[in-house]
Amino acid sequence: MTEQVKQVGEQEVTLLPEGNIATPQGFTAGGVHCGIRKTKLDFGWVYSDVPATTAGVYTTNIFQAAPLKVTQESISSGQKIQALLVNSGIANACTGEQGLADAYQMRKWGAEAFRVPEQFTAIASTGLIGEPLPMEKIKYGIDQIQMQGNHHSNRFEQAILTTDTREKAIAVEIEIDGQKISIGGAAKGSGMIHPNMATMLSFITTDAAVEAEALSLALKDITNTSFNMITVDGDTSTNDMVLVLANGKAGNELLHEGHPDWSLFKQGLAIVCEALAKEIARDGEGATKLVEVQVEGAESDQAARAVSKAIISSNLIKTAIHGADANWGRIITAIGYSDQPVDPDKVSISLGPVLVVNKGMPVPFDEAAAKDHLLQDNVSIHTDLGSGTGKATAWGCDLSYDYVRINASYRT
Amino acid sequence: MTEQVKQVGEQEVTLLPEGNIATPQGFTAGGVHCGIRKTKLDFGWVYSDVPATTAGVYTTNIFQAAPLKVTQESISSGQKIQALLVNSGIANACTGEQGLADAYQMRKWGAEAFRVPEQFTAIASTGLIGEPLPMEKIKYGIDQIQMQGNHHSNRFEQAILTTDTREKAIAVEIEIDGQKISIGGAAKGSGMIHPNMATMLSFITTDAAVEAEALSLALKDITNTSFNMITVDGDTSTNDMVLVLANGKAGNELLHEGHPDWSLFKQGLAIVCEALAKEIARDGEGATKLVEVQVEGAESDQAARAVSKAIISSNLIKTAIHGADANWGRIITAIGYSDQPVDPDKVSISLGPVLVVNKGMPVPFDEAAAKDHLLQDNVSIHTDLGSGTGKATAWGCDLSYDYVRINASYRT
Repeated sequence: MTEQVKQVGEQEVTLLPEGNIATPQGFTAGGVHCGIRKTKLDFGWVYSDVPATTAGVYTTNIFQAAPLKVTQESISSGQKIQALLVNSGIANACTGEQGLADAYQMRKWGAEAFRVPEQFTAIASTGLIGEPLPMEKIKYGIDQIQMQGNHHSNRFEQAILTTDTREKAIAVEIEIDGQKISIGGAAKGSGMIHPNMATMLSFITTDAAVEAEALSLALKDITNTSFNMITVDGDTSTNDMVLVLANGKAGNELLHEGHPDWSLFKQGLAIVCEALAKEIARDGEGATKLVEVQVEGAESDQAARAVSKAIISSNLIKTAIHGADANWGRIITAIGYSDQPVDPDKVSISLGPVLVVNKGMPVPFDEAAAKDHLLQDNVSIHTDLGSGTGKATAWGCDLSYDYVRINASYRT
Repeated sequence: MTEQVKQVGEQEVTLLPEGNIATPQGFTAGGVHCGIRKTKLDFGWVYSDVPATTAGVYTTNIFQAAPLKVTQESISSGQKIQALLVNSGIANACTGEQGLADAYQMRKWGAEAFRVPEQFTAIASTGLIGEPLPMEKIKYGIDQIQMQGNHHSNRFEQAILTTDTREKAIAVEIEIDGQKISIGGAAKGSGMIHPNMATMLSFITTDAAVEAEALSLALKDITNTSFNMITVDGDTSTNDMVLVLANGKAGNELLHEGHPDWSLFKQGLAIVCEALAKEIARDGEGATKLVEVQVEGAESDQAARAVSKAIISSNLIKTAIHGADANWGRIITAIGYSDQPVDPDKVSISLGPVLVVNKGMPVPFDEAAAKDHLLQDNVSIHTDLGSGTGKATAWGCDLSYDYVRINASYRT
């Protein structure tokens, strides 16, 4: 990612080309191989010099995995986290009492290794469901961290991946109270991706000082328009979690909803979340392209979100995009079954720059131009429902042979 | 299908091995090639010697296609249909005023050909969305019917297919008031298949005399546990329709809800609908097997239906079944996001005869036996939620490379 500047009113959010989760002051991160996965890194950590104010959002799946329960307990005890430990390969989900005991044990070892209280320690797991956490490997991973550290952020980003094909990292910089403040993030997620919260882990750090409740509300808001707007396959997993840690090392005045720069900070956080969400969608299992669906003219933002999710989730649309086939009939169909207030005679649809449906009726269009757009790495579908001011954007990917190949034998 | 007898109380429903939509007395059916599709039959008809009491259910998609509007108008004017005309290849959906005019014209020509009033004529179309109905081909098809008839029922079943790989036909026989009564059916549907009503056309005939309102209520009831419980890809189309025509030629006393044999008739109709629904699921685009998901122990039938649909709709489960991978974690996950009242600690899951989850916890199981089951043509997933008496069954198919291949280039 090259350096870019995004204007927010008269202020700026600067993308840092090499930024990552360890960019904000006072954060270090790394990853080791503990043996759960064959050769790839499978155990990552993030550490803050001081306890960081922390907010989280978690999967809505009824079968919530053990590490999420333990991490929520940590955060709710004082809204502070200093150490975060994540393993990939085994999700520690559907593992009952033993799974919960194992998660507590993983937290305890982590706390000891980083010499922080257990309630300042967060944990996460991702991978296979229903297998017990291999505790001797977890212990080995923690010992490795203590001995070597491996303080390289990109090792953290590698260590949290499962079927992902690439690391997902970003950082941005803003200026508040004359202080440079940065926000960094890392994520994993490739399959079982769907609103609300997917097999998706996302960790965000900032050196800003932020009031706990404001941070929590901001994260919930932003999650609804970023992580909850992506889908790969419609399956919401047991282990999804987004955490944001704010350690205050930048020395700014405490940010809260009344602070003049609050919207700038929130915008910076939103850019980080949206960038990570899009990277997850782009790296969907078997995906060959990122698909962005913009819906406007809906009766409400909520209706726009539902329509955009119906479009982005349709297997028929995803396969048509895979084949670069301008099959707008499937888009009409998805809008029609989204169960939202839609007037068929007011709907317009464009594929990239090419208008294909105007006020409910197909229009003659340049097939070659439409195909050209669908062959790009970034495909956009724009829909105007013509009935109001509600709007939303959703992200997803195409459905390919490789999706089937990957998922026909993930476990074996 | 070999002859089988199903016991309903002390009475019997007999499956007729060679039965089809023209089995009931007084019905004839056929199909011709009118040139919409390259070489395959693409124009089918069903005719009853006398006007038949008719009930219908229709797609819930907001973009309801023109022929559905015209057919609903016919039926609502007197609840009688005598002639039915169906073309495949072009759906006449999203075609605006012209599409509606074309649908009326198709009905008019059909009525003239069969010498019945327009309001006794039903029409249906299936195929590409957004293309105008090629009226000269439709006219040619109707002329062909008038000249040759082609009175072979299996030509009707062929003529209504699109991406289907095989015809779908069934008939059963029951005895009411000492009269033999038969119920026959034909269906098409392969992609864009999802509750409620899919790219699915289903036509059912019976020589029973049935009171109009009772027939309508019975069809709605039965649709909810048959056609609305199948999914191929989660997309509900613009053209779905199920019609049942009862012409009374068997000479029984008029059937109604108070008739002692009402439940027998309803059971016969249910068997026909369920058989056609399963055939559609089995012939899902790219499908290599039929998947049956049974859910019991739910707090209500409605909750059981929602859970079974979540399971049958999951791409991750469908690909795992395609790969014969006993990945029960994905079933747990789907149950968990179905948004129904489920107690995680009470859920049990079996793959065919193999118990894999018992009361929320994985159990050691014979991987080879589970794989053996998943390699069958008929796969069953059984879930007991352990929380009540609600139950439901849903049907679907696996997700294969061929699904992607077929749908990446349907239009081109």
